[in-house]
Amino acid sequence: MIVEMRTGTTPEEIDGVKQRAKSLGLSVQLNLGTNKVVVAILGSNTGQLPTDIFAVLPGVENVARIMKPYKLASREFKAENSLVSINGIEIGGKRIVVMAGPCAVESEEQLVETVRAIKRSGACILRGGAFKPRTSPFSFQGLEKAGLELLARVREQFGIPVITEVVDPHDVSLVSKYADILQVGARNMQNFALLTNIGRKKCPVVLKRGFSCTITEWLTAADYLLAEGNNQVILCERGIRTFENSTRFSLDICSIPVIKRFSHLPVIVDPSHATGHYSLVPAVAKAAVAAGADGLLIEVHPNPKEALVDGLQSLTPSDFARLMEELRSIAKAVGRYI
Amino acid sequence: MIVEMRTGTTPEEIDGVKQRAKSLGLSVQLNLGTNKVVVAILGSNTGQLPTDIFAVLPGVENVARIMKPYKLASREFKAENSLVSINGIEIGGKRIVVMAGPCAVESEEQLVETVRAIKRSGACILRGGAFKPRTSPFSFQGLEKAGLELLARVREQFGIPVITEVVDPHDVSLVSKYADILQVGARNMQNFALLTNIGRKKCPVVLKRGFSCTITEWLTAADYLLAEGNNQVILCERGIRTFENSTRFSLDICSIPVIKRFSHLPVIVDPSHATGHYSLVPAVAKAAVAAGADGLLIEVHPNPKEALVDGLQSLTPSDFARLMEELRSIAKAVGRYI
Amino acid sequence: MIVEMRTGTTPEEIDGVKQRAKSLGLSVQLNLGTNKVVVAILGSNTGQLPTDIFAVLPGVENVARIMKPYKLASREFKAENSLVSINGIEIGGKRIVVMAGPCAVESEEQLVETVRAIKRSGACILRGGAFKPRTSPFSFQGLEKAGLELLARVREQFGIPVITEVVDPHDVSLVSKYADILQVGARNMQNFALLTNIGRKKCPVVLKRGFSCTITEWLTAADYLLAEGNNQVILCERGIRTFENSTRFSLDICSIPVIKRFSHLPVIVDPSHATGHYSLVPAVAKAAVAAGADGLLIEVHPNPKEALVDGLQSLTPSDFARLMEELRSIAKAVGRYI
Amino acid sequence: MIVEMRTGTTPEEIDGVKQRAKSLGLSVQLNLGTNKVVVAILGSNTGQLPTDIFAVLPGVENVARIMKPYKLASREFKAENSLVSINGIEIGGKRIVVMAGPCAVESEEQLVETVRAIKRSGACILRGGAFKPRTSPFSFQGLEKAGLELLARVREQFGIPVITEVVDPHDVSLVSKYADILQVGARNMQNFALLTNIGRKKCPVVLKRGFSCTITEWLTAADYLLAEGNNQVILCERGIRTFENSTRFSLDICSIPVIKRFSHLPVIVDPSHATGHYSLVPAVAKAAVAAGADGLLIEVHPNPKEALVDGLQSLTPSDFARLMEELRSIAKAVGRYI
Repeated sequence: MIVEMRTGTTPEEIDGVKQRAKSLGLSVQLNLGTNKVVVAILGSNTGQLPTDIFAVLPGVENVARIMKPYKLASREFKAENSLVSINGIEIGGKRIVVMAGPCAVESEEQLVETVRAIKRSGACILRGGAFKPRTSPFSFQGLEKAGLELLARVREQFGIPVITEVVDPHDVSLVSKYADILQVGARNMQNFALLTNIGRKKCPVVLKRGFSCTITEWLTAADYLLAEGNNQVILCERGIRTFENSTRFSLDICSIPVIKRFSHLPVIVDPSHATGHYSLVPAVAKAAVAAGADGLLIEVHPNPKEALVDGLQSLTPSDFARLMEELRSIAKAVGRYI
Repeated sequence: MIVEMRTGTTPEEIDGVKQRAKSLGLSVQLNLGTNKVVVAILGSNTGQLPTDIFAVLPGVENVARIMKPYKLASREFKAENSLVSINGIEIGGKRIVVMAGPCAVESEEQLVETVRAIKRSGACILRGGAFKPRTSPFSFQGLEKAGLELLARVREQFGIPVITEVVDPHDVSLVSKYADILQVGARNMQNFALLTNIGRKKCPVVLKRGFSCTITEWLTAADYLLAEGNNQVILCERGIRTFENSTRFSLDICSIPVIKRFSHLPVIVDPSHATGHYSLVPAVAKAAVAAGADGLLIEVHPNPKEALVDGLQSLTPSDFARLMEELRSIAKAVGRYI
Repeated sequence: MIVEMRTGTTPEEIDGVKQRAKSLGLSVQLNLGTNKVVVAILGSNTGQLPTDIFAVLPGVENVARIMKPYKLASREFKAENSLVSINGIEIGGKRIVVMAGPCAVESEEQLVETVRAIKRSGACILRGGAFKPRTSPFSFQGLEKAGLELLARVREQFGIPVITEVVDPHDVSLVSKYADILQVGARNMQNFALLTNIGRKKCPVVLKRGFSCTITEWLTAADYLLAEGNNQVILCERGIRTFENSTRFSLDICSIPVIKRFSHLPVIVDPSHATGHYSLVPAVAKAAVAAGADGLLIEVHPNPKEALVDGLQSLTPSDFARLMEELRSIAKAVGRYI
Repeated sequence: MIVEMRTGTTPEEIDGVKQRAKSLGLSVQLNLGTNKVVVAILGSNTGQLPTDIFAVLPGVENVARIMKPYKLASREFKAENSLVSINGIEIGGKRIVVMAGPCAVESEEQLVETVRAIKRSGACILRGGAFKPRTSPFSFQGLEKAGLELLARVREQFGIPVITEVVDPHDVSLVSKYADILQVGARNMQNFALLTNIGRKKCPVVLKRGFSCTITEWLTAADYLLAEGNNQVILCERGIRTFENSTRFSLDICSIPVIKRFSHLPVIVDPSHATGHYSLVPAVAKAAVAAGADGLLIEVHPNPKEALVDGLQSLTPSDFARLMEELRSIAKAVGRYI
């Protein structure tokens, strides 16, 4: 941590900073510039310390971090890429893993029709929401437990792993009985009670990026899962909130290479929620694979016109089949396969 | 809802929109422009319908809402201002209610010292966090149950009402035993399981604005509380996330008059979290009162230099006393009092 | 335009809206809902009218646009893709056009070395800045006229077209003598005096997106160029400003398919300014081509360590050569070539 | 500047950083932590150096600034508040200076009526636009030179100073003949050619904040004016672009105390452009004065319903009169007057 003192600071103020550092077991080095005193605070875990500890002291102008606040998710902590394995399907390796399905589970018929279509096209994991966090209390909130049972039935029938969202810390055990991967939605990225419980469960988890959280906050949230001993963490970029209003969110394509540079965790992309419109999904899905994403999470519905939730961003089975063909070419162009 | 058809749309496509509207019990009016067909969908609750229902139909270019998606929180639903009463202290009336105290409860001594100071200066509600949602798993997470007990003890001793945060839907009953007002933090504004449980509890609640949620989403989240029959809802503006990085968040001062125009709910302001720095708190607190806020939520710590959480944004008791004097003048200037 | 009246509006207020519309030569249709009156304003150019014209009238709650405010840049105005041709190089067709070169022109040696490298790798247009708009007055501001002369000399020697930025409306004639394409930088996207002058010059122009302008504002700025009769307009996405701070800007990858849907103009991508870091440029460049961009604008410097401006985001010639190989595969995967 | 080396950096890489610093006349201090090497670069003008100079070197992970990039606008450079004097009206002192008038000059009658009204209410400077930078080429662009002449005529008749916008660098001399204060609009905050010309003219200037520029960039833009010897610089906060869409922009109220802390320049607030709606202007204007703004820039139109530009955000003379009364009370509450 770098502590910048105010111009004209006194020896007593500098001493105050030194004392505070020593009381925390940290060492201190002084940099005396022409008109600024800068104090470097050194130690192995300064990234985990709040900067306020020094910023409140008299004479301090500003405190800057050198170490990142996340630790277990960082590439410095673990140099090689992490792989997450779901029934033999490896996420984070050469294969681009496509998870597809409806936003919300509506009926067995809907699920069966969807699974047949997406398997035929090459998707290998089924997505479907049973608990739906909806902006308005007057909207359809999901089939809840009945939805989980439908997912489990289809999973058995077709031998396809299932990913579904969990929204309440106390539902983690329940949901993980029915699903192979738990999904933490964007609105829950900093629901730390939920993260801790999933961390303890040690099951595969997709951690969606909060739509106004920085990449640093996202990796620090992943630390909550990793700190409990759960290493099966997959990140999912799904768009951030910006001033642009022609799409629902703005997909942060730069986050893919940034994550690859600073973290060992696999990262997938959800082009459906980012764009909010089926006509924009293919371009963004292709961009994600070209940028180095390890997988995709795509909404597919047998009949989007009748979907209870988010029909506008769902692909039809035939649109999805066409997209998968195009994605195969892109995957090959970057040395991977689907 | 206004459905704009694509240029060159067919009679069959227009008919599809009409049929969909009728199947939902809505009426339809056609507007034929020189080169655009626009279909107006009319009914008493179109605000609660997702626009997707029409946007996915063939020939539709765009769908715009006329009605707002929130209902119970709107001034159209209830014209006169709502008042929330806590032990006889009325929020939303002529009095500016100041809630003050430390970010995190640390010890009984800390609380006692704080209460003495803030009461002397004119604050009438004590704030203090027992459950702290922290960005990093390696940070201090609050005293939890022990913190609640300290708050309750001080509440009894000094006869001052207490506000504290609840983060887990299953802790609502527990926390409401110890506190007079429950606080929903910014990161939980769209934690709908939490909102529903607090709604059912029917106790006073401060709903902080999610730091990247629009005012419309905020009022729609308030509908979750109101829909369960809890009318004691207080909104709290605490800054939104923007590109500006000289402050922790950017306080959206415009939200105060916007809320007053579109909603009947009282709204208070948290200048401490918005700015993140004690030197900026007074200016923003004064601005909030001048803009029409019904109260303030301010961090005060007897010794900010030793605070375990957010010391940099906490005022000392003497800074707070000075600010309260200034606030009294501003309150008077806008026809109110503290 | 859709004018929503306040609940409880009077016949006189509705009449006021009708009169205003008629005075502008527009027709009016009334939609009477259960508790709302909505007035549809119809006419061929309502997109170009400010909404204020109706919003200020008594009884009006809100005014929403149906027509987009841009016209000449829209696909409704011109259905087929526009092509811009520079010395036989067509932008907007099957070929992905790569423009490369240093951020700032520094010397003839630097330019010659760059051109040799980028031509060898397959780039076909040279970029280089002579006038540099710099955030600080104490930074290097470019070689100005001497820089233009260096560009022209190299252009002649190697037969490669040149793109360079113009920042002052009065320099348009000067710069267009030395360059084949004028570049309008992000900070000048709404410098309307500059746009008008370039429009009159009728020379090829790259219009960079303002870093906090919506796509709608961007296309409306393009209308300034098109309205003067200049049809050789190329759009360039270069990242928008968001809260994310691990990259200089956030590239809005969704803007590519949005532009393709709503406009006929070609669009290229600048991955160098968006990311600000050479290690992130290749992933974003590949994503852009996969998403459907018609070209790229990439910073290449023979010796980034010694660059006077933006060295951190410049590729070395060998990094650039490697990237071009990868881009060729992506281009092929989407049915195009470099 | 603080240069953080990659974990496992080599002595050669550290030496490369040292050499680069020495070649720029800077001194170097090494901080050796447990697993990080951090190099402090010291010198009197490191704030004006681009961080890229070090960031491109091998082994460098990150470079952070300690010194701010602006210099002449900083309080470190000049400790006491700057005052700008216009015909004896001092901006930056005890008096809150209110500038009011129409968005666009439309006619002599309109101006005369406006001046009478605003003078009566206590405004002391007339605002009015002759050159209007408009988003769309199809909108009214201002009366241009004829508008300037109208302003000058009214100025003479009523003895009231005039502020008006200049958009083209080559119009600076022309406009400054007719106006007492030049206004640089938000879209031109980084139009450096314009800033330089106004700097040379040494006339009073209001520098509006770019709607997506940080406070640091804003003060650095002020350095362009100051560097040419123009000390009569007034800053104007007018809202930044965020995701919130219920107002046109989000007024950054925190910027007022931030500016006061880090700069000596006076700062005023434009509540009209920030909110975009007359009903929100009073609350925001009062907040600005309470937060410490030195003045206000408010749109007033004798007949907003007939205004050619921005009628929705203009106050009527009677609304303005009422607001001025309220502002007087607020000013008094913060120890100032109007």
